[in-house]
Amino acid sequence: MQRSDTPVVRVVATPTDMNINDGAFGGWVLSLMDQAGAVTGVSVCAGPVATIAVNNVSFEQRIELGDIVSVFADDVEFGTTSVTVSLQVTAENPTTGETRRAAAGTFVVVAVDANGEPRKIDGDYARSRDARPRER
Amino acid sequence: MQRSDTPVVRVVATPTDMNINDGAFGGWVLSLMDQAGAVTGVSVCAGPVATIAVNNVSFEQRIELGDIVSVFADDVEFGTTSVTVSLQVTAENPTTGETRRAAAGTFVVVAVDANGEPRKIDGDYARSRDARPRER
Amino acid sequence: MQRSDTPVVRVVATPTDMNINDGAFGGWVLSLMDQAGAVTGVSVCAGPVATIAVNNVSFEQRIELGDIVSVFADDVEFGTTSVTVSLQVTAENPTTGETRRAAAGTFVVVAVDANGEPRKIDGDYARSRDARPRER
Amino acid sequence: MQRSDTPVVRVVATPTDMNINDGAFGGWVLSLMDQAGAVTGVSVCAGPVATIAVNNVSFEQRIELGDIVSVFADDVEFGTTSVTVSLQVTAENPTTGETRRAAAGTFVVVAVDANGEPRKIDGDYARSRDARPRER
Amino acid sequence: MQRSDTPVVRVVATPTDMNINDGAFGGWVLSLMDQAGAVTGVSVCAGPVATIAVNNVSFEQRIELGDIVSVFADDVEFGTTSVTVSLQVTAENPTTGETRRAAAGTFVVVAVDANGEPRKIDGDYARSRDARPRER
Amino acid sequence: MQRSDTPVVRVVATPTDMNINDGAFGGWVLSLMDQAGAVTGVSVCAGPVATIAVNNVSFEQRIELGDIVSVFADDVEFGTTSVTVSLQVTAENPTTGETRRAAAGTFVVVAVDANGEPRKIDGDYARSRDARPRER
Repeated sequence: MQRSDTPVVRVVATPTDMNINDGAFGGWVLSLMDQAGAVTGVSVCAGPVATIAVNNVSFEQRIELGDIVSVFADDVEFGTTSVTVSLQVTAENPTTGETRRAAAGTFVVVAVDANGEPRKIDGDYARSRDARPRER
Repeated sequence: MQRSDTPVVRVVATPTDMNINDGAFGGWVLSLMDQAGAVTGVSVCAGPVATIAVNNVSFEQRIELGDIVSVFADDVEFGTTSVTVSLQVTAENPTTGETRRAAAGTFVVVAVDANGEPRKIDGDYARSRDARPRER
Repeated sequence: MQRSDTPVVRVVATPTDMNINDGAFGGWVLSLMDQAGAVTGVSVCAGPVATIAVNNVSFEQRIELGDIVSVFADDVEFGTTSVTVSLQVTAENPTTGETRRAAAGTFVVVAVDANGEPRKIDGDYARSRDARPRER
Repeated sequence: MQRSDTPVVRVVATPTDMNINDGAFGGWVLSLMDQAGAVTGVSVCAGPVATIAVNNVSFEQRIELGDIVSVFADDVEFGTTSVTVSLQVTAENPTTGETRRAAAGTFVVVAVDANGEPRKIDGDYARSRDARPRER
Repeated sequence: MQRSDTPVVRVVATPTDMNINDGAFGGWVLSLMDQAGAVTGVSVCAGPVATIAVNNVSFEQRIELGDIVSVFADDVEFGTTSVTVSLQVTAENPTTGETRRAAAGTFVVVAVDANGEPRKIDGDYARSRDARPRER
Repeated sequence: MQRSDTPVVRVVATPTDMNINDGAFGGWVLSLMDQAGAVTGVSVCAGPVATIAVNNVSFEQRIELGDIVSVFADDVEFGTTSVTVSLQVTAENPTTGETRRAAAGTFVVVAVDANGEPRKIDGDYARSRDARPRER
């Protein structure tokens, strides 16, 4: 599936999210990415998912206080029971409008049933579905 | 200014955001709207803003746990020192993709200088600027 | 109903509540007001309520870190299924004791039954009840 | 100093504050008491304080989700550099209005200067001051 | 029971935990201690507990932003239905490795059954059990 | 460097940390791991660090509400300016004492100077230092 220009998650970096060194906490950025991966997975799988793996995360540019932080799903691949989501994080200075790539990484989620056991993904449904956010 | 199809803020409703009655806290939704109004104002005014008024907020449909909550800036008007942002909140069930209007309201922010005093908005700049989120 | 001198909600502004510009987040103040409106409504309606509208909110004086923030219910009106609460927010510097009006606004809540549907308010009960906080 | 009928701190117990066993976290109640002790100390000492001791805390009745939790300063004693505040915590069911004593305890704070060193309290000032919350 | 060298709780002090005066909030430290007391109690009692008393808490050295804060259970005594845990809190500067005692105090928890009523502790089980954290 | 039996971070899973599906949020676990990686890096580098990469994270067993979650640094390697920390996360049921491996992964942090630029690590110092938590 191709990338979407609509962010899956989009928030403002507040003082609570800031590290001692003044950039945003890596852990906070990872949480946003995990949330974006999960939401994308739920949408493709039409049901609950659980994160099972994280790979190739790079932190590229520091996120400043007040930046608008967006997580985009650049690519979504699905297997029998799992979905692999390539995520990209951008940070925008709302005063200047300058936007930069802040982080990227791959999150893998697995579709689960009511008992938390893996369940098969309906491939036709998943393919037919635009996994990324729908507009109003 | 015309509305944008890109949300200013977009998050998932987590257990922390849920009321005793199981819908999302009204106060949490108001916080998201305030953040969206402020970010829109900073973008138009090219500098810090402070919220000064909130009007005509209606809560229309309950937000459920796990919904994707988006705040859109439908309209942005600016005066000498203030910006009026018409906000709309939607809630999307990520499993079914069903999206509904959850709330709407008007937030007014004022451009402030380093001392927190109101400052004039550069009208040409504000008009030239698409106040709503820019894509990558 | 007449105003009460006892706050419905009273907290200290901590670093978590502070904006980038150093005053308290508007969204945080709105959350406190929403909580005060809801508690007042529950008390008058003797059961759960949901916020349905917010109007005429003005932010008048900035709230500083460490201020004691109180929300008062100045007036409470009730209709068939809804309660309209006029709220006032004050901020007190605990070091000097100086207190100022920080914000005000009107919150409307609706009484709901177990299914979240509006239910009639018992007017006699509501009138007989002092909706505002009771002392020990 | 005599007790006040106005709470120093007053909040609603939300899902975030609830323990696994469904009553409020003891740690959350202790945080509210610490905040009430500190605010009372700042008021009497006309400057910053730090908590140095906690004693005789008893948890008497469980606090339920949705209860209005109030912390009262029943008694305030001051020494050369420290203030001892006897705190009482009540929980009110907003639906029924039923109020019960939930906890009590003694918090000692010390007045500190800009370097965090203890400083003398002005006894006349402290005595002249009603240390408890002032009305509007 | 003798003390353990493994902390029951161990976290880093973040900006959210910091007081206006720049040391950690007393209330935050009390929350960590309460959590450590509860976990120790659950372990000894093999079931849920509720905090019923706190005594002799002293705050000895200020905790700085970025310090590693550990809570140790120095001693654990058990009665018919309650467990008394002597807790010690240390703060370590991760840059220099310098560690100091920051606080200490005694937390009493009571074993409760499904209805929240006190239940008898199995003394043999409690004695046979190392109440403090187990290694991998 | 060899692994340590003392956790770098150790906390209890509270309702706030729980996912809609009832296990702990993956993002919360990643935040704990990031914090453990950072603390370990600060200790080895004797100064501030920033996370630059995350790899090979696997979520192996679900973390339940009330579990004691510990993050251990199993191995620490250092390069010219960076430190690679192999982390392991365990979850312990405090009632039964049963402990299982919940997650693992590799976090890379870089030593930074006051301007946030990478700085060389003192290899002798780093080697001489036990990077993992020191006892009291």
